[in-house]
Order: sequence, then structure tokens, then C-alpha cells
Amino acid sequence: MPALAGKAAENLRKIRASKPLIHNITNFVVMNFTANALLACGASPVMAHADNEVEDMVDLADALVLNIGTLTDTWVTTMIKAGRKASDLGTPIVLDPVGAGATALRTNAARAILFQTWVSVVRGNASEILSLAGQDSVTKGVDAVHAMNDAAEEAGKVARDLGTTIALTGPTDLVTDGRRVLTVEGGHPLMPYVTGTGCAATALIGAFLAVDKDPLTAAATALAYFGIAGENAGDGAEGPGTFMIRLLDALYTLTPEEVEARCRISKG
Amino acid sequence: MPALAGKAAENLRKIRASKPLIHNITNFVVMNFTANALLACGASPVMAHADNEVEDMVDLADALVLNIGTLTDTWVTTMIKAGRKASDLGTPIVLDPVGAGATALRTNAARAILFQTWVSVVRGNASEILSLAGQDSVTKGVDAVHAMNDAAEEAGKVARDLGTTIALTGPTDLVTDGRRVLTVEGGHPLMPYVTGTGCAATALIGAFLAVDKDPLTAAATALAYFGIAGENAGDGAEGPGTFMIRLLDALYTLTPEEVEARCRISKG
Amino acid sequence: MPALAGKAAENLRKIRASKPLIHNITNFVVMNFTANALLACGASPVMAHADNEVEDMVDLADALVLNIGTLTDTWVTTMIKAGRKASDLGTPIVLDPVGAGATALRTNAARAILFQTWVSVVRGNASEILSLAGQDSVTKGVDAVHAMNDAAEEAGKVARDLGTTIALTGPTDLVTDGRRVLTVEGGHPLMPYVTGTGCAATALIGAFLAVDKDPLTAAATALAYFGIAGENAGDGAEGPGTFMIRLLDALYTLTPEEVEARCRISKG
Repeated sequence: MPALAGKAAENLRKIRASKPLIHNITNFVVMNFTANALLACGASPVMAHADNEVEDMVDLADALVLNIGTLTDTWVTTMIKAGRKASDLGTPIVLDPVGAGATALRTNAARAILFQTWVSVVRGNASEILSLAGQDSVTKGVDAVHAMNDAAEEAGKVARDLGTTIALTGPTDLVTDGRRVLTVEGGHPLMPYVTGTGCAATALIGAFLAVDKDPLTAAATALAYFGIAGENAGDGAEGPGTFMIRLLDALYTLTPEEVEARCRISKG
Repeated sequence: MPALAGKAAENLRKIRASKPLIHNITNFVVMNFTANALLACGASPVMAHADNEVEDMVDLADALVLNIGTLTDTWVTTMIKAGRKASDLGTPIVLDPVGAGATALRTNAARAILFQTWVSVVRGNASEILSLAGQDSVTKGVDAVHAMNDAAEEAGKVARDLGTTIALTGPTDLVTDGRRVLTVEGGHPLMPYVTGTGCAATALIGAFLAVDKDPLTAAATALAYFGIAGENAGDGAEGPGTFMIRLLDALYTLTPEEVEARCRISKG
Repeated sequence: MPALAGKAAENLRKIRASKPLIHNITNFVVMNFTANALLACGASPVMAHADNEVEDMVDLADALVLNIGTLTDTWVTTMIKAGRKASDLGTPIVLDPVGAGATALRTNAARAILFQTWVSVVRGNASEILSLAGQDSVTKGVDAVHAMNDAAEEAGKVARDLGTTIALTGPTDLVTDGRRVLTVEGGHPLMPYVTGTGCAATALIGAFLAVDKDPLTAAATALAYFGIAGENAGDGAEGPGTFMIRLLDALYTLTPEEVEARCRISKG
């Protein structure tokens, strides 16, 4: 879709021109890599999680990234506080439900955030996204989806139920608001061997949301940009270590023109 | 020992085939590097430390890694809770007593974990391992061990006292359950210049414990694999930065065949 | 200034010979990179933040690094406790007021640390440093400073008010104790695209303070060393990822002789 390729380039240009402040409340494992991915893209990351600071920081931010890895109850409370402030201000929120479905704490935390704040985009893998749906869908699980080959339908249901946009990432990414569906090609087989690549994709969606009011196109163009960077990083990588470092290089060196030329977003 | 070289290859093959879930409760400094080392090896890392989540996560895990760097009291409590659950389930535990002997908090935390849970392997340097022994040994300290040239004897005593297997790492690694002793050659002089290499070795022992029921051979083969990866990483490294990244590449690209051919485990 | 170039080389030599223990209470984002930067320089980093451990750790340390990124109230209390102990012992303290001026929590925390402990050096950017001054200066903000082209005068005022040495970093670094002023050239345009480079500079000032009793020369020589390493890292970097890794290599491979030859410290 040439229109969306142009949009991807435009969004990247806007980020580099305006350097939006992206407030992350994220997990300990990926804080460093997330901040570096946002910097490489051209955004300004800030990490802040104190109960008596998050509202002040949201006030300054152009987008809020909530990520529930390495969670504790205190952090959930703070995420909701930050998310409510962002909802009040109309600041876009992206949620990464890391590990939802694996433990009750994670599943409940993701749902609590979704029910109490206004989340623009949820980015996760199939099993995390399905765990956000009602009891019935959960019990079918991720294999069911693969068997039915209907990820789009399931993700669409979740999007409609929760009133949000779902970005379900995997070898092919799928973005849907429950009405429209886009698929995004790109990436590299080494991505799953580097911790925090999914979380970085989520944070980049935050940066794209800061400059693009349509969650569907913001998420799809962010994933297209990230996927192309992954392909560039894979050229010459000798394993997951060099891939990780080259991914930061690629996010930085990728031009809007190259993104536009290589963007592979299709109607789903 | 050809038998152990074969075992090292077999363990690595099993990890890559079964992708065991390794639950880490570890310190903030090394969380990212530890997760990446486990992914590069072929295992599935998860980091989770919430009091109301760790038991659920242990339930899913094939091994539990406890690491006491950047400790607070709350974390000790949680580690013990997770460790007790793992002990009940027969899930292997590896402990990294980072900084034991340096402060009372660290020494006491390491001992509390050892006394209240069933730890399969403790991996540390000489000074950390000795601090786990009784008062008398502690006061002799690490220099005493070097002077006596009897690290094996001292480590053996600690292993017997605590009913665990000790992996004492340094230029040459020593693994003992108090009865049998193995030494492992390998590694690179740049290793001590990268934070978290010891912690990564500990986590990899966790992955090997998930596929090898004998703590002695699991620890020795993990350290042999890690040492060979370190040698590969050192070739062409221009300093500790490139070494660190090449180490992740090496953990990923190293084949079971190469591990078997170059494994240097001896009876101690 | 050849005298200071010699001092820079001498300080680096002393660090590599004595491997001073640098106790860091720092933010989650940069813990790993900070530890690696200190190791690459030749120092021994330790991260410890538990209320019931920090005094024991300060007791062992040759310098204390306090960094207020990813702050919570508990951490402020602990930083002050550690800082008081260091003040009692005469152990030098360096403070990084990350984000001071952005939120009340950060500004108040930085001031509380400065008022309740004996800080040798504060390292920050212009906006952070100005926020530490009285109400009037704060409201003028960072643009005012640029407009007035009088960063030295403003930083000098802050240094005199707070009885400390200010290291204000940017394209050109400025170090002043309110009486003497030094400027330091060096660095690379990719530095702001890697999270934690400023925090690493702060930690390296800690290492230099451990071997140089004059905060002014310790800070200036640390920044000169860091700037030269940045230049070396920039040669051949393909983006912020490779730059970050090459920076660790450069901190490690840089010799005292090279630092002396290329050191660019001037009277301000």
C-alpha cells in the first residue's frame, strides 16, 4: 500500500524533527535496550516509575509506554495512575502485556490497565493477546489460533471487546482495530534470540503514536520501520549479539526514503 | 574426559531441542545480559520476582536461578519462597552468591537460601564460596586458599557442609560435590572486564541442570561450553565491548560437535 | 595545559594499578553500561542499594556514585544514608542529578542529597545544573544560559552556593569549583544517541576522585579521558549500537600516554 509506505516515511520524519518525549514504565530487563532503540529512532526516552512522579512525567510526555514484564503490585498501581493521567490528557498509551496468560498476576495486571485506562495500542504475541480476551478464548489458547488460521479474526474480536487496536507480532505482524486489518512483513529470524526486541517494537509504536493520531497506521508503520531495520541488522550479523547492536545502528541510519521504498504493509 | 565431552554436547543438544524455561530472580545489572546468554544458548529465560507471582512461575519452569546481587530484604524473601516451591517440585536450583563475604546482608542471604531451599549448584568465585562456610574458614579468606593451593579441598568441605555442588570459577574452574572433583579449562582474560559473565555462567548452569540430573556434570559441562564460547569471543575482540557481544554470538553459533571436540574437563 | 594532561595520564595509571572500588547507587537503565564502563577503565564497580547494606558497602568503597534516574523515595533515603556515611569517612561522592528540573521529585531529591551529604562533584547537563540553583535561576532555564553565553558564570554561582564542584557537560565540558574554571574538549556526536553516556561519565569521575583529591582536576581529567575514548569509538562506528560497544573497547585500550598526548583541557 503506497499510501501507508508514504505514511511510514512521514511518521519517521516527524519523529526525527520533533523528538517526542516517550515516557516508559517498563521492565528491568529491557530498560536499556528500549531507551537505546527510542534514541536511535530519533525520539527522547524517559524512564520513571515513582508513584509521586509519574503524573508529572506524563504531563511532559508525548506518549506513554506501559510494559508489564518484571511486574510487582506497586508497579501495576503506578502504571494505572500514569495511564489515567495520560487518558485525561489525551496522551496516547501503548501496552505490552509481557507474559500475560503465563501467570495470574500478569493477566490480571494487563486487564486492569486495559479496563482503567485508555490504551491506544496493545502489542503482543498471539498467546499474550489471546489471554486478554474472555475466558472462552483463553482456553482455546495459541495453538487453536494457528490451527484455525484465523489470527485476524481472533485479534479483531479482542480489539472490539477491549476498544483498542491490537498489534499481534510474529513472523508476519497483524494490526487491527476490529474493523480494519493490516499485515506487515519484515524482520529477521535472529529477532527472537535477542531479549527486548518485542518490547522495543512496543516502545517504537509509542513514538509513532506521538506523531500519528490513527493507532492503526501508527502501529503498522512503526512495525514496518522496525522490520526493515531488522533486515538491515541481519545483513552481516554473526549471531544475536552483533544482530542486537546492528539493530540499533539500523534504526538510526534508516532513512524515511528507504523506509518508504521497502515498506511492506498490506490490507489483511 | 571423552565421556564428559560427549555429555557436554548432549546437554547442549537437549537444551536446543527442548528450550527449557529458566526462571531467573537475579540482579538488575545483569538481567539483560543473562537473558541474552540463555537465549543464545537455546533456552527460554523468564525474569519474575513478584512475591505473588514467583510460585506460579516456578510451576512452569525447568530450573530456577537465584542471584543475590543488588539485593534487598524483600528479594531474599521472594527468592526463598520461589526456592521452596522449586524444592517441593524437584526443580533444580542454582545459586549465585554475588558479593557474599563482602557485606553481612549478602552472606546472610546466601546462607538463608542454602538452609531453606534445596540448591543443586552454587557458582561463585573463591571468596564468595569460602564465605558460605563456617566462621573459621571465613576468617582464613581467599588468600589463605591460594597460599595453601587447596581450593579443591576447601570447596569440597563447603559442598559437604551444605549438601550441594560447588562450582568455583576462576582462570581454571573447579566443580565438586564433596566427593568427586572436576576441573574445567577455558575462557578468556577479557571475561573479568565484562560485568555479568559470572552471572551468565550461573544461568547457563541452570539451563544445563534442566536437562542433566547430575549437578556435577551439569555444572562442569555448562562451564566447558561457556569457556569455549569465551575463547571464540576473544578471537577478534578489540576490547571488552566487542568481547561481550561476540560472546553472545559464540554461545549461539557454537555447535555440540565443536563443544565435544574442544571440551576440557578433567578429574580434579 | 600540559600539567593537566600529565595529571590525566597519572590518574588513569593509578586507577589501573589500584583498581578502586566504586560504589554505585544508580538507575536501572544504565546499571549495566556503568559497570562495564568502570571495568573497562580499570576500576572495580559494585552496585548496592539496600538500606541495610549501603553503609557496609560504603565502608569498603573508594568513591560513591549517586544517580537519581528511575528514582523512588526509598532510594533517595538510601542515597542520603550512604552519602552521610561517605561524608563521615571522607570518601568522595559524585552526584548525577538525572532529570533534575523536569519533575519536583528529581529536583528535590538532588537538593536533599546536596544539603545532607558532602558531594565533591555534580555532573549534569545545563538544565539539570541550573535546576539546582535557587528559584530565580531555575526560571531562567537552560535557553537563558545559552542566550547569555555565560554557562561558566552560572555554573560558578551554583558551585559556590552548594559548596561543590560542577561538571557541566555538553559539546564542550566545563568544570568549575566557583573559583577556578576548566573547559574540556572531546567526545563524539553519537554520544547523545546512547543512553547512559552521561551517567558513565559521572561514574568515571567517581573513579578519578578515588585517586585524585582535587575534585576540579579529577572531574576534568575524567571527562578528557572519556572524550578521547568517544573520539576513538566514533572512528568506524556505524551508528549508536556499534558506537556504544566501541566506547567500552576504547575506555579499555586507551593508554595513559595516548590520553596525555591528546588531552584537551584549558583554563576556562
